Amino acid sequence: MRFATLSLAVVATFACAAGAAVKPEAAINYRQSAYNLIGWNFGPLAQMMRGKAPWDAAEFSRRADRVAFLAPQLLEGFPEGSDKGADTEAKPDIWKHMDDFKVKMDDFVKQSKLLADVAKGGDEAKMKEQFKQTAAACKACHDKYRNEE
Amino acid sequence: MRFATLSLAVVATFACAAGAAVKPEAAINYRQSAYNLIGWNFGPLAQMMRGKAPWDAAEFSRRADRVAFLAPQLLEGFPEGSDKGADTEAKPDIWKHMDDFKVKMDDFVKQSKLLADVAKGGDEAKMKEQFKQTAAACKACHDKYRNEE
Repeated sequence: MRFATLSLAVVATFACAAGAAVKPEAAINYRQSAYNLIGWNFGPLAQMMRGKAPWDAAEFSRRADRVAFLAPQLLEGFPEGSDKGADTEAKPDIWKHMDDFKVKMDDFVKQSKLLADVAKGGDEAKMKEQFKQTAAACKACHDKYRNEE
Repeated sequence: MRFATLSLAVVATFACAAGAAVKPEAAINYRQSAYNLIGWNFGPLAQMMRGKAPWDAAEFSRRADRVAFLAPQLLEGFPEGSDKGADTEAKPDIWKHMDDFKVKMDDFVKQSKLLADVAKGGDEAKMKEQFKQTAAACKACHDKYRNEE
């Protein structure tokens, strides 16, 4: 089959939830990629917030949608045993306090969804307020569970 | 403001489309992250196709949605000048033949959208057929524009 070559490479690289157990390094690589994409899209919102980029409600909404779509995908990047295996800023406390970590992750999912929803309305003041709530949700988790050096 | 610390870090790390010019290494890191997430979600579909994982139409649909959402985000990871600046498998031909590259990228966007749409119907035969079309769209671009070693 024509897809055989490609899919073999894909499967070899990404052992995934649907099949074999996830390798720690694959999970770490995955979650870092997801955070990277979130940062890529959250960055321009922060720039608008600070007046470093022109206010653009449509662009804000487009990127907020992406953050909201990615947020619920983070948690599967933290399977048991992925506290080590590659360079990671994730603190071992995540797996010791997984219930609390999930609460914080759920809050980020909720706040980013609200941000995407509010942005569809185009009300600048509301968007700015909800941006702060979303950034606070990021920070609450990073402060406790990320080694930021 | 409470988000100041976070957003400063975010902005420092990810120079983005809304503001300053994108640094090549940031673009390369971004696109590799996007491909990584696509692979993470496409992998389990390939495993189902090969019978390496049990057929699960709902899981297939959930992951096909992610691939379809991510596909249109790839192109902004290939700004002019990002043919070097960090390890990359992207061939310089991409920027020499950007119109053709965009055609191939558009086809992947289209095929992955069709895959997500078909998957919502839950018809296994149609999903399998459209998976092949989507994988072929990946392969058409990789064959020409990616150094796969």
